[in-house]
Amino acid sequence: MMSGERTYTLTVSCPDRVGIVARVATFIAEQSGWIVEANHHSEPDTRRFFMRNVILAGSLPVGIEVFRQQFARIATEFQMNWHISDSAQPRRVLILVSKHDHCLVDLLHRWRSGDLPCEIVGVVSNHPDLRAYCEWHQVPFHHLPVTPATRATAHARLCEIFDAARGEVMVLARYMQILPDEVCARYPGRIINIHHGFLPSFVGAAPYNQAFERGVKLIGATCHYVTAELDQGPIIEQDVIRIDHSDSVQDLVHYGKDIERQVLSRGLRYHLEGRVLQNGQRTVVFR
Amino acid sequence: MMSGERTYTLTVSCPDRVGIVARVATFIAEQSGWIVEANHHSEPDTRRFFMRNVILAGSLPVGIEVFRQQFARIATEFQMNWHISDSAQPRRVLILVSKHDHCLVDLLHRWRSGDLPCEIVGVVSNHPDLRAYCEWHQVPFHHLPVTPATRATAHARLCEIFDAARGEVMVLARYMQILPDEVCARYPGRIINIHHGFLPSFVGAAPYNQAFERGVKLIGATCHYVTAELDQGPIIEQDVIRIDHSDSVQDLVHYGKDIERQVLSRGLRYHLEGRVLQNGQRTVVFR
Amino acid sequence: MMSGERTYTLTVSCPDRVGIVARVATFIAEQSGWIVEANHHSEPDTRRFFMRNVILAGSLPVGIEVFRQQFARIATEFQMNWHISDSAQPRRVLILVSKHDHCLVDLLHRWRSGDLPCEIVGVVSNHPDLRAYCEWHQVPFHHLPVTPATRATAHARLCEIFDAARGEVMVLARYMQILPDEVCARYPGRIINIHHGFLPSFVGAAPYNQAFERGVKLIGATCHYVTAELDQGPIIEQDVIRIDHSDSVQDLVHYGKDIERQVLSRGLRYHLEGRVLQNGQRTVVFR
Amino acid sequence: MMSGERTYTLTVSCPDRVGIVARVATFIAEQSGWIVEANHHSEPDTRRFFMRNVILAGSLPVGIEVFRQQFARIATEFQMNWHISDSAQPRRVLILVSKHDHCLVDLLHRWRSGDLPCEIVGVVSNHPDLRAYCEWHQVPFHHLPVTPATRATAHARLCEIFDAARGEVMVLARYMQILPDEVCARYPGRIINIHHGFLPSFVGAAPYNQAFERGVKLIGATCHYVTAELDQGPIIEQDVIRIDHSDSVQDLVHYGKDIERQVLSRGLRYHLEGRVLQNGQRTVVFR
Repeated sequence: MMSGERTYTLTVSCPDRVGIVARVATFIAEQSGWIVEANHHSEPDTRRFFMRNVILAGSLPVGIEVFRQQFARIATEFQMNWHISDSAQPRRVLILVSKHDHCLVDLLHRWRSGDLPCEIVGVVSNHPDLRAYCEWHQVPFHHLPVTPATRATAHARLCEIFDAARGEVMVLARYMQILPDEVCARYPGRIINIHHGFLPSFVGAAPYNQAFERGVKLIGATCHYVTAELDQGPIIEQDVIRIDHSDSVQDLVHYGKDIERQVLSRGLRYHLEGRVLQNGQRTVVFR
Repeated sequence: MMSGERTYTLTVSCPDRVGIVARVATFIAEQSGWIVEANHHSEPDTRRFFMRNVILAGSLPVGIEVFRQQFARIATEFQMNWHISDSAQPRRVLILVSKHDHCLVDLLHRWRSGDLPCEIVGVVSNHPDLRAYCEWHQVPFHHLPVTPATRATAHARLCEIFDAARGEVMVLARYMQILPDEVCARYPGRIINIHHGFLPSFVGAAPYNQAFERGVKLIGATCHYVTAELDQGPIIEQDVIRIDHSDSVQDLVHYGKDIERQVLSRGLRYHLEGRVLQNGQRTVVFR
Repeated sequence: MMSGERTYTLTVSCPDRVGIVARVATFIAEQSGWIVEANHHSEPDTRRFFMRNVILAGSLPVGIEVFRQQFARIATEFQMNWHISDSAQPRRVLILVSKHDHCLVDLLHRWRSGDLPCEIVGVVSNHPDLRAYCEWHQVPFHHLPVTPATRATAHARLCEIFDAARGEVMVLARYMQILPDEVCARYPGRIINIHHGFLPSFVGAAPYNQAFERGVKLIGATCHYVTAELDQGPIIEQDVIRIDHSDSVQDLVHYGKDIERQVLSRGLRYHLEGRVLQNGQRTVVFR
Repeated sequence: MMSGERTYTLTVSCPDRVGIVARVATFIAEQSGWIVEANHHSEPDTRRFFMRNVILAGSLPVGIEVFRQQFARIATEFQMNWHISDSAQPRRVLILVSKHDHCLVDLLHRWRSGDLPCEIVGVVSNHPDLRAYCEWHQVPFHHLPVTPATRATAHARLCEIFDAARGEVMVLARYMQILPDEVCARYPGRIINIHHGFLPSFVGAAPYNQAFERGVKLIGATCHYVTAELDQGPIIEQDVIRIDHSDSVQDLVHYGKDIERQVLSRGLRYHLEGRVLQNGQRTVVFR
C-alpha cells in the first residue's frame, strides 16, 4: 500500500470486452513500465469493466504528460473513463467540521504521520472552537458561521475558499450542516461525508437516537460520496461495533466516535489512493 | 454457560427502586441457594429494573413449586414480571422452514450435540423436501402446503400442531410465509424469526437484492421476536459480514447463510436460556 | 464467485518482470478468451509474481487440453509454476474426522447445497460413530481404527483409500490423530487441517485449555496446509471470536466450533477454487 | 457507562459462598444506596467470587469515608479484597512514550474530550520529539533519555516523577524500553502496557515482522498489566484486524496503529472505571 517510491496510478472504467487487459498491459510493458499493483473487476450485469494499475514512475522512459497523451489513444478506442494520478502530487483536501473534533484530530494526525497521502489545504468550520488546534498544525482555519439566513452566502464563500486553495477533495468530518444542492452538484465525486449511522438505516438527524429506539445490537458508520439527496450517495466504506442493552444513547455517541473516525479515514484513503471507482449508485473499491 | 448441573433460572423485570437485589438475594440466601450466574440492568429513562439469577437446584432444600410459591410474595411486593425455569425441563421448540435448509440443519445439529438446550418437537414446512432429513433425526415432520387460498386454514392447522405438541417456542428458520396476525397475537414473545437483512434496513422481500442495489459494504442478519408488524419486532441478536464489489447477489445469498445460522442459533439459545427480557420494543439480553 | 457457467482457472507463480500480464492477457485475448475474474500480486522482497485468471470455457475455440499445450510455451518462457483447472471437473476430496462432527456436518451440508465445488469421495474416521450420517448422504465411510501399535499400517491404508478414490485433497476436519511424516510428504499442498487455535498461539493439544489458562480475550481457529512440522504449515485462513471471564473451557470448546467450521469451509473453498498459491511458508489468497 | 452524576464504585473479590450478594446488597439498601450498575462473577474452579457495584453518591446519607469504614466490617467477615473509588476523584495517570505518537495522541484527545475518566499528570519520554504536542495540551512533559548505561538511574528518576505527581496508573503507550524489575515490582497492577501483537503470539521485539514471516491472516494488539516477565502479565483487552498477502510489514505497522490505540484506550478505560479485577494470571473485566 505505502511504497515510498514515486508511482503513477491508472484507473479505468469502460464497457467490458475481450482484450482490454491485453491492450493496456501491452502498452505499459512496451514502455517497460513496472506494475506494482493491479486490480480488475468485470460487472456481469452491466457488462462494465474496471481496472486500476500502479506503475513505478522510475520504470518509464517518459514523463507523466507524455504517458497520458499516449494512453489517450487507447482510452478513446475502448471508450474509457480514465485517470492517471501521480503520487508526487498528492490530492489537495479541505476539511469541513463543526464542533465534534474526533474525526478532525484523527485526520490531522494521520496526515502529519504520513499515513494519509494528501495535502490538507485548510479547515472550514461553522464554529470557532477548533482554530487553535488547526493552527498548531499550521493548517489554515476558516471560521464560516452559518445561520438559516446566511446559509447560501456562507456556502458560496465555502466554494471560493475551496477553489482558491485549488482543493480537489472536500471532506465533511462531522460537519453538521447540509450542503446546498448547487455545492453538491459543483463537485461531483469530490465531496466525502461520514454519516454516523449504518446506511441505509437511520438517515438524517440523530442516528444514534434512532438506533437506540429501534434496539439494534450493532451500530455503524458510513463513508459516502455526497449527492443532492441526503445520505443517498454511493457508499465507499462502512463498519459496525457491537452494543448492548446497558448502553445509553450517550454511550452510543461515545463508542460511535471510534467507528466514525476509522471508517472516514479508511474511505478517504481509498479515495486518495485512487482505489474507488463509481459504478452508478455503487462503488468499486480496490483494497 | 453450560453447567451440567440442574439449575433454576429466575428472571425478573419490575419498576426500579432501592432494595430489590437485597430482597431477592436475601431470599435466595435464606434458602441457602447457590447463585452461579447473576445479571442486573437498570434502565435510567424508564426506571425499570431487570434481573436474571441462575441457582443450583441441588443447593435448595425445597422443590421448584415451593420455591415459586415462596418467591411469589416478593414478586407481588415489587410488582414483578417474573419467571422461574428449570434446566431439567428444556423448552419445547417447533421449527418452521420452507426450502432453504441451512438454518434447520444447523439447529438440528446443535440440538443433537447438546449445544442447544431444548426439545425439538417437530418441523413444519410448506414444502415436502426436508422430510427425510428431519425423520433421520427422528423429528416429526409436518408438510403444510400454503397457497393464498389456504393460508388461513393452513396456519390454523399450524397452531393445532404447535398446541398438540405442547410447543413453547416457534422458530421461523427461513420460513418464507408471513404468519397471519392472529397467530402472532396468539403467542406473544414466543415466535422467533431470522430475517436475512440487517434491520431496520431492507425490510420485507429480497433483502440481499436490496443490499446489492444500495451498494452496502456489510450485509447482516437479524433474529427478532415476531409481532403483527412485519420485521418490526424486538431485536434479539444481529451480526454482519463484509462483502465487496466483486460479490454478486448470489454471493450475498451464499455468504448470508453463514451469518443467518449463527445469528438465529445465538438468538434462540439466549431465549432458551432465559437471557432475553423484553423492554418495550427493545430487549435486554444478558449474555 | 459462483458463476454457473463452465470456467477454466489459470493460476501462475513465477519470477517477477516486465510484461508477464501483457503476454498472458494477449495470449488469452488472441484466443478470444473472456476473463471473468483476474487477480495479480507482486511480492517486492522475493520479486515473485502471482496471478489467477478465470476464463469462460465457452469463449475459447479450443478444448482445455489444447489450451494447456498452447499455454505451456509461455510458461516455459517465464519459468512459471502453473495450473489450469476446469470447473466441470471439481476436485475430489477425502474427509478425515474423529468424533467431533461439527466440521463434517458443515462440509457435507455445503457440498450437498452446491456451495462447495468438489466431489466428496469418502470419509475416513478412527471411530465408527459417524457412519450412519455419512451413509445417509451416500458418502462412503471407512472406519480406520488407530492405536499406537497400528498407527503406521492404518495410515498406509489411508493412503490406499485416498489413491483408490483418486483423491486430490485430504481434509482433516477435526481428525485427532497426527499424520505420519511420510503421509504429509506424499501429498504436499494437498492436505488441509483445521487447528482449533489461533496459530502460532496454542500449538498442539488442548488449545482451548491453553487459551483459557493464558486468559486471552479472543479465541480463534486456523486452516492451514499440513507439513511434517506439527501446526507449522502455511496458513490459508484464520478467524477469531470474543470471549470473556464468564466463559469456561467448555464454553470455549462450544463457541470454538462455530469459528472452526467457518474457517475450515472458507479455507477449503479458497483451495478448491484455486485461490490459494503457496509463497514459501506463507500463502497468497486471492479472495 | 458515562453517567454525569457522582458515583462510588465498589469492587470486591473473595472466596465464594452463599450470601455474599445478600449481605452486600442489604448493606447498600440499608443506606438507601441506589445501585446503577452491578456485575457478579463466580469462578467455579477457583471458587472465587467477583463483584462490582456502582452507587449514586447522592443517594447515600454518609460520605465516602464513613461508607468505607462501615463496609470494612463486611469485608473482614467475608475475607474480601475490596476497593471503593469515587468518580469525583479520577485516577492520576502518567503516560510513557517513545517516538510513535499514535497512542499518545489518542489518549490525550479522549482525555480532553472527557471520554477517559482520569487526570493526566504528565508524559515521560526517552525522546524529546513530543514535548510541543504535550505542552499544547498543558500536560507536563519529562524528557528522560535512556541508554544501556543510564537505564537504571533513568528509571529511578521515573519513579520519582511518578511518585511526586502522586501517579496511580502508569501507561506504556508504545514505550520502547523495558522497565526494570524493581519498577514493575513497585507498582503491581498499576502499570498498563500496549503490546503490538496478539499475545501470546509474537512476544518481544518486532511483532509485526514476526507476524508477516509466519503469514498470519489477522494481526492484533494486547493491553495487559506489566509484570517482571516480559509480555506475560494478565491480559485486559485484545483485538485483531484482517490483513492479506498484499500487505507488507510496513502496512502491518500502519494498520496496527488503529488496533493498538483502540485496544489501549479500551483497556485503560476499563481499568480507570474499576471494571478490571485480577484473577491470578487472568482478569475479570466487567464491561
